[in-house]
Amino acid sequence: MSGAATTELDGCVVHPDLEQERKKCSFKILDFTYALYGPENFAILTKLRTALSRNPAFDLRYLWAIDGSTQQYVRACWLAEEVVKVIRQLKLIDQDAAIGPLQVLAGEDMFVMLHLTMFLPTLKNMCDDEQARYWVPLAEDFRIIGTYCQTELAHGSNVAGLETTADFDEKTDEWVLNTPSLQATKWWPGGLGKSCTHCVCMARLRIHNKDYGVHPFILQVRDLNTHESLPGITLFHLGKKLGYNSMDNGGAQFRNVRIPRRNLLMRYCHVDRQGNYRTLGNKKMMYGTMTFTRKQIIMAAGPHLAKSAVIAIRYSAVRRQFPIKMRDSGNQENGNNAEAQVLDYSTQQLTLFPILAASVAYTMTGIWMDAFYNTFIEEAKKGDFSKLEEIHAVTSCLKATITLAVADGIEKCRKACGGHGYLLASGIPIQFVNFVPVATYEGDRVVLSLQTARVLMKIVQRKMMNKSPNPAMMGSTLEYIWNFDPFEDQHAFTVDDGIWSDPERILEAFKKRACVLVYKAAQQFASETSNGATVMEAMDVLKVEFTRLTVAHAHVLILRLFLEGINRLEPSAIRDVWVDLWFCLALAWCDEYFGDFVITRAFGPDHHDGIMVALKAILRKIRPNAVAIADAFWIPDQLLNSALGRYDGRVYEALLNSTKLEPLNRTDVPPGYLEHIQYILHPDRRKRASPLHCKL
Amino acid sequence: MSGAATTELDGCVVHPDLEQERKKCSFKILDFTYALYGPENFAILTKLRTALSRNPAFDLRYLWAIDGSTQQYVRACWLAEEVVKVIRQLKLIDQDAAIGPLQVLAGEDMFVMLHLTMFLPTLKNMCDDEQARYWVPLAEDFRIIGTYCQTELAHGSNVAGLETTADFDEKTDEWVLNTPSLQATKWWPGGLGKSCTHCVCMARLRIHNKDYGVHPFILQVRDLNTHESLPGITLFHLGKKLGYNSMDNGGAQFRNVRIPRRNLLMRYCHVDRQGNYRTLGNKKMMYGTMTFTRKQIIMAAGPHLAKSAVIAIRYSAVRRQFPIKMRDSGNQENGNNAEAQVLDYSTQQLTLFPILAASVAYTMTGIWMDAFYNTFIEEAKKGDFSKLEEIHAVTSCLKATITLAVADGIEKCRKACGGHGYLLASGIPIQFVNFVPVATYEGDRVVLSLQTARVLMKIVQRKMMNKSPNPAMMGSTLEYIWNFDPFEDQHAFTVDDGIWSDPERILEAFKKRACVLVYKAAQQFASETSNGATVMEAMDVLKVEFTRLTVAHAHVLILRLFLEGINRLEPSAIRDVWVDLWFCLALAWCDEYFGDFVITRAFGPDHHDGIMVALKAILRKIRPNAVAIADAFWIPDQLLNSALGRYDGRVYEALLNSTKLEPLNRTDVPPGYLEHIQYILHPDRRKRASPLHCKL
Repeated sequence: MSGAATTELDGCVVHPDLEQERKKCSFKILDFTYALYGPENFAILTKLRTALSRNPAFDLRYLWAIDGSTQQYVRACWLAEEVVKVIRQLKLIDQDAAIGPLQVLAGEDMFVMLHLTMFLPTLKNMCDDEQARYWVPLAEDFRIIGTYCQTELAHGSNVAGLETTADFDEKTDEWVLNTPSLQATKWWPGGLGKSCTHCVCMARLRIHNKDYGVHPFILQVRDLNTHESLPGITLFHLGKKLGYNSMDNGGAQFRNVRIPRRNLLMRYCHVDRQGNYRTLGNKKMMYGTMTFTRKQIIMAAGPHLAKSAVIAIRYSAVRRQFPIKMRDSGNQENGNNAEAQVLDYSTQQLTLFPILAASVAYTMTGIWMDAFYNTFIEEAKKGDFSKLEEIHAVTSCLKATITLAVADGIEKCRKACGGHGYLLASGIPIQFVNFVPVATYEGDRVVLSLQTARVLMKIVQRKMMNKSPNPAMMGSTLEYIWNFDPFEDQHAFTVDDGIWSDPERILEAFKKRACVLVYKAAQQFASETSNGATVMEAMDVLKVEFTRLTVAHAHVLILRLFLEGINRLEPSAIRDVWVDLWFCLALAWCDEYFGDFVITRAFGPDHHDGIMVALKAILRKIRPNAVAIADAFWIPDQLLNSALGRYDGRVYEALLNSTKLEPLNRTDVPPGYLEHIQYILHPDRRKRASPLHCKL
Repeated sequence: MSGAATTELDGCVVHPDLEQERKKCSFKILDFTYALYGPENFAILTKLRTALSRNPAFDLRYLWAIDGSTQQYVRACWLAEEVVKVIRQLKLIDQDAAIGPLQVLAGEDMFVMLHLTMFLPTLKNMCDDEQARYWVPLAEDFRIIGTYCQTELAHGSNVAGLETTADFDEKTDEWVLNTPSLQATKWWPGGLGKSCTHCVCMARLRIHNKDYGVHPFILQVRDLNTHESLPGITLFHLGKKLGYNSMDNGGAQFRNVRIPRRNLLMRYCHVDRQGNYRTLGNKKMMYGTMTFTRKQIIMAAGPHLAKSAVIAIRYSAVRRQFPIKMRDSGNQENGNNAEAQVLDYSTQQLTLFPILAASVAYTMTGIWMDAFYNTFIEEAKKGDFSKLEEIHAVTSCLKATITLAVADGIEKCRKACGGHGYLLASGIPIQFVNFVPVATYEGDRVVLSLQTARVLMKIVQRKMMNKSPNPAMMGSTLEYIWNFDPFEDQHAFTVDDGIWSDPERILEAFKKRACVLVYKAAQQFASETSNGATVMEAMDVLKVEFTRLTVAHAHVLILRLFLEGINRLEPSAIRDVWVDLWFCLALAWCDEYFGDFVITRAFGPDHHDGIMVALKAILRKIRPNAVAIADAFWIPDQLLNSALGRYDGRVYEALLNSTKLEPLNRTDVPPGYLEHIQYILHPDRRKRASPLHCKL
């Protein structure tokens, strides 16, 4: 009814609704992009977009057509080969800042990504200098392909419980690796099933029957010439997963696999020819790979969420439903009979705009996280580990909170696209199924909340014991917890209507919420232990509270970083839009976690009305800029891989075209008819038919 | 470490942890089952389990092995053939009460399910007597296979906006069907792509250029002998979806397709040979198929959620993580070195037990819904439509609330299984991807919340105008809204510690929350319209509030029905467990929606602590019964389709076995090696190799 101009197929005319949306926005789109990513990342993105955009390997529409996991794996190997070519051509191998964006732009994870983000960094971190000189160039040049092999079938988060053994054989100067039980089968490492030639394998180091705990060993698993698995090593593919099926997550069992003594990675410990064991440096750095990986996850989360947000926003501007004339309609010129743009509906705005705002906020958080991590590493190299606790708390709480929020946000975007969001051609399902495991791997919310809560409660405990603050904490992301006074601050935060237009005061409310939750948990913890509970038991009783205070602390961090980003901008149209987005995100969280805010007396029960009025006003304010903000993420169509999120908005043509890729559309009468359907309709045919019945 | 007894593969010995769990439960498992489903449904289930359990078509493990959508579709056709055989053998075709359970037990939806749950009921409802005599036996005997063809590419929820036309040609006494635009392409009907021979097609009825709006026509789409699509009809498969890929959702375009005048279904309207149009009976019943389908969805939701809950609970009893000695441990005999059962962790309990309780509550709600619907239909047949408004409100609010909660609950169960939950072999991903579209189709939460809010606000408006209550409302599920006094009840609900052990008082708090949200929305609505907003605009401004009051109203209904179920039981061990589950669900909702409760003054900010203390106590009380409650859903292993949720708890053996089904494990060196990986490792080989490079 609304779309006379959109009926030609394969045209390149932009849908008039989107054209209109882009005309009316208040800012220059590419200025937003540049401000968001910053000059360095913007330059990297520009370079990568050019390198990737004409390469058919990076066109993910094949996912709509692919018929089976074998085909998908072969396709992933092709993508891997092309990724390696790009890295070799652009000489990106030691540019850490480029690997993250490359991974997001490639759109699909496969073995070579784990080689880059886990295997290679682990070698760099865990090898001693001599080992590094041998292994790192091999890995950097892809003459070996590796993965990180830690999790076992029955042992995940509890790393200390791993069972795989590495016994020192003094006679041959070798380690002998074994899988002592079914439960000890290595399970999950990406690429281990079929693709990798090597791995860093975590195993219990034992010398003369003494167990020194879990240590990293470099282990070759496949022949470099034939790619066959090596003797004593059984490798297999784990089978199909909810998503992420381009990655061959694998399993392994070892039977008396012998590797040289020097295959133990010896940066943080050393074993000599006689089997003498000694530790070197700060042993906490041995788990550095996990902190690094969490940092990488946090960096990628915002751009991942943005993909789904862009799809849902553009589609909602083109999709029309119910003939309702709206006051703030995007398209005033439509007559009374035209259906309204779905983006004009308040529920759609409340669903999508906070996700759009969060995509911006998480992207900024990720960029800060990267810089903060790099500073920490620089300091650590100089022997300064004072930020170790903070980096642990920050990566844990942000990883736990943001990954869950992103998974949830992607699924909300999918539902916001109605039925069409369920088609792979919408581009969102693949985002969801590929991203959702990130919320589980490298520490799920419970495990990471424990880590976060431990650090935060220590601050309270120190304060309660009237000690002076840890100097490393002053000026850090943790300082506000120390500064909070639980005794003077018992009464409700003074709230008047002015607060809803004052970011600093809203941020204070978020801080109060986080602080009270932390102090309350510390109090309950003390009361549990003084009632005779062991520390372990008290920790378990309070786990629920820990997960909540972790989210509250993460919100403070994210909103603070976003606000700092805004304050760095000169007054401008971009700055105004960022302020709107900040309010949108903060107020949406005030609403969503309102229970938290009243429990902690940051708000009283009456303040919810004010939140909703302010929130609805900000949604209407964002509305005319929504499509332009989506555009500003600067994601090319090819990588969005979406019939609904196309830049030109020609969604219905694209959906119809997408069906041409479906293998079942190759014939009118489907393969199931002759084998089965005809016998439902004509049971008598079964009696006289030859046995065509095929059991799969 | 804990599993010496579990290392034999393919054994049938139950894991000692599960054996222990079953020993210590407080009730007889099958008594629970019988009380839950009721005598009639229990009998049907028994019959169906026997018929299905030895039939390999119903073994869903093939999903772990299947390589591509074509294979999956052929497999679905086989399943369909077997379902039809069961229906024919057990003569179930006119036993509506058996079709729902059959659908749940079959585990996979495919075209024949839509034939049973949408096509056939529509024929029964929409045909006049003569038409019914012709069409119903054909459909009941599967001599035709049909679907319900309504949604178009650009038109979903707004049925009145459908564009497909059916023009009356008086000369030939025929309707001429056309697809006037790309946007009018029929899109989504299950089975329409490849499987169906017929459909009920919704199209604009036009006579002599006058448009009478959307009406149902029966339309043959494929040849009954060859299965080829008929002239003028273009049929196609929509392509791959997030899940539900055994169903061939399809699209259709019509060009001058001619069908006899009597193919208009004429129960509620009539068109004669001269083209005179008249309506018959209550036209609201024309949309009866949608109400019926929502009822069916509500009935199936509890059993669907139960599948994932059972898997997560059993796995959490077998999975061990971190060596923590717990006070309330399920396995006292373990030494200090053994890792704890994950089910002992408070976060795991808080995640899973409310889902277990909700599975029970939704199952009971579904059984009530079915009975209530059947009563309504009986009355309607006698011309009594007084419950029409209530049935509309009830089906709308329960469908919206429960489907979202179930989709969310399934995903929570999956995450609660850690990494392994991500494997298809865990059985949960297929539950999630297959169930999640149910939250969108047949009305999403926004559309249905509008329907619910309209009915609820009418009650308030009537009351505010000092009218007497509608007699049909008295004694109904809506009466409590009428009985609420917004003026006398301004102050906080009196809460003391006694409330947490008194279901009636907790239910009062839920009622207060719902009522205040409804009255507040009605007030805001009146204020918007008196400020000059149109009804449509005011509706949109309040949509956010509508979605929330709909959930609140649904919670009252669900908790009330569950409580009535409890009160029907004699004092017994089962009754005690049900009471625990009731508290668990109610308190978990009090916590989750605490913001709602304080905003509406049902609780004050101080009451959250009491909720958490009571909730944690009830979780510990449920803990020893958790596995037995899961067992009581009486879902056979074959239909759970889960390596993690097996009755015998031998999860690690089952996981390892599941990898044998993966096609990529047929060879050691994978197909991607020769084509791509070797050139990453040895780029020089590319130069001298023959062109093996294969682009998909």
